[in-house]
Amino acid sequence: MKPLILVTNDDGIVAPGIKNLVNVMKEIGEVIVVAPDSPQSAQGHAITIKKPIRLRKVDVFEGIESYECSGTPADCVKIAKHLLLKDRQIDLCVSGINHGSNASINIIYSGTMSAAMEASLEGIRSVGFSLEDFSFKANFEPCLPYVKQISEWVLNEQLENTNLLNVNFPKLAEGEAYKGMKICRQAEARWIERFHEATDPFGEKYYWLTGDFVDEDNRPNTDVKALKQGYISIVPSHHDLTQYDALDGRLKDLESK
Amino acid sequence: MKPLILVTNDDGIVAPGIKNLVNVMKEIGEVIVVAPDSPQSAQGHAITIKKPIRLRKVDVFEGIESYECSGTPADCVKIAKHLLLKDRQIDLCVSGINHGSNASINIIYSGTMSAAMEASLEGIRSVGFSLEDFSFKANFEPCLPYVKQISEWVLNEQLENTNLLNVNFPKLAEGEAYKGMKICRQAEARWIERFHEATDPFGEKYYWLTGDFVDEDNRPNTDVKALKQGYISIVPSHHDLTQYDALDGRLKDLESK
Repeated sequence: MKPLILVTNDDGIVAPGIKNLVNVMKEIGEVIVVAPDSPQSAQGHAITIKKPIRLRKVDVFEGIESYECSGTPADCVKIAKHLLLKDRQIDLCVSGINHGSNASINIIYSGTMSAAMEASLEGIRSVGFSLEDFSFKANFEPCLPYVKQISEWVLNEQLENTNLLNVNFPKLAEGEAYKGMKICRQAEARWIERFHEATDPFGEKYYWLTGDFVDEDNRPNTDVKALKQGYISIVPSHHDLTQYDALDGRLKDLESK
Repeated sequence: MKPLILVTNDDGIVAPGIKNLVNVMKEIGEVIVVAPDSPQSAQGHAITIKKPIRLRKVDVFEGIESYECSGTPADCVKIAKHLLLKDRQIDLCVSGINHGSNASINIIYSGTMSAAMEASLEGIRSVGFSLEDFSFKANFEPCLPYVKQISEWVLNEQLENTNLLNVNFPKLAEGEAYKGMKICRQAEARWIERFHEATDPFGEKYYWLTGDFVDEDNRPNTDVKALKQGYISIVPSHHDLTQYDALDGRLKDLESK
């Protein structure tokens, strides 16, 4: 029997990235798509609890059962799992291919990765795919054989310790090829924000968030470094934010207060 | 010189929780408030990049410089740090007191904790405070001495390994007192979702997300367990989602493909 594969993203159901992803998944399993009805970049792990969610069956991918959803990427996974596919086992969830990198700290802001993480919380093996190119016209072609290979590998292997992979593809120059795949740690890089200040037509000030991505992590084996060197980065990930090193430190003093 | 303390939350600037938090912080430092202009629960680590952000100076807390912001909790911290307080060192960021628990997996959905985490990414010591009571009329009174104690402790100590604490208070029954504080790990608990289905006045279906929180984590020392036993849980936290145990496992096979 073919594996059941849930496909979602955060750029919205009509983004080229998800179209490419669906085309690859069709070759390896039965596909169902539940994706946001509008772009949801930088939504982090937002979920919709204060208002209702709309769901509409759409005909976007030929021969593929597809739904657009008014909610966040994490909502899409919840609704697929608990409303649409209640009695069926989802063998794999793939999210993306995102237009833009989700390496390093971007994982916490990313709608793409929040969808993949939401599936992993449900015990579903999941992979978020992202290409280091924000353009709507980004060239996903060179990624596709790797997307297929990684997805098949995850379906066939029972990985110990992780059911969530953060996969990022560097942007290739014309004629360049990927150097291969590297298993990495999340780089300790960050954004230095700037607020663009302007005035609206009514004379009111507004601010627009922008910034520069800065990587000062000199440790070997980070995802940002792998991407810079032309490798595809794969970071095994999880959702336990405990800082274990600090559990038995001086923090314990608080217990006696 | 008094320490500079940034106060934010996700329930919005008029929520009782932040009022209580501001009252405590006034006693220990110079306070600036930047908080969402509307409730932003379950916003996860969302940030606003596709539209402008509005910021307005408001007079909500007597004698305290305060701003309401149209953005997410994480946006509030970014705008405080990079627009309002550019040249000043923020000594502590506190977020909350949230109306509702952010223990266990709730940390990833939580706007309260995303604000605290955003500050920690900037190298600011930060604490998210949450009370296990969703009610607008929740009684924050018993939390306040502990909020003060923890904040002062964090200000005075140079903690190794962590600059982010997730603090949760259990709901007390009438006449009950907290048993003390416990340093904990994040419980491996989760939500089992249900979608409430209904029809709007126009005959269109909608879905409303609800669910049950399930804790099957039998390991000692989890935050959920501490709360159940009447303790205040303190989880040292971080933003590195790498699953280190999986870095050298079979995943390495992919590198040779």
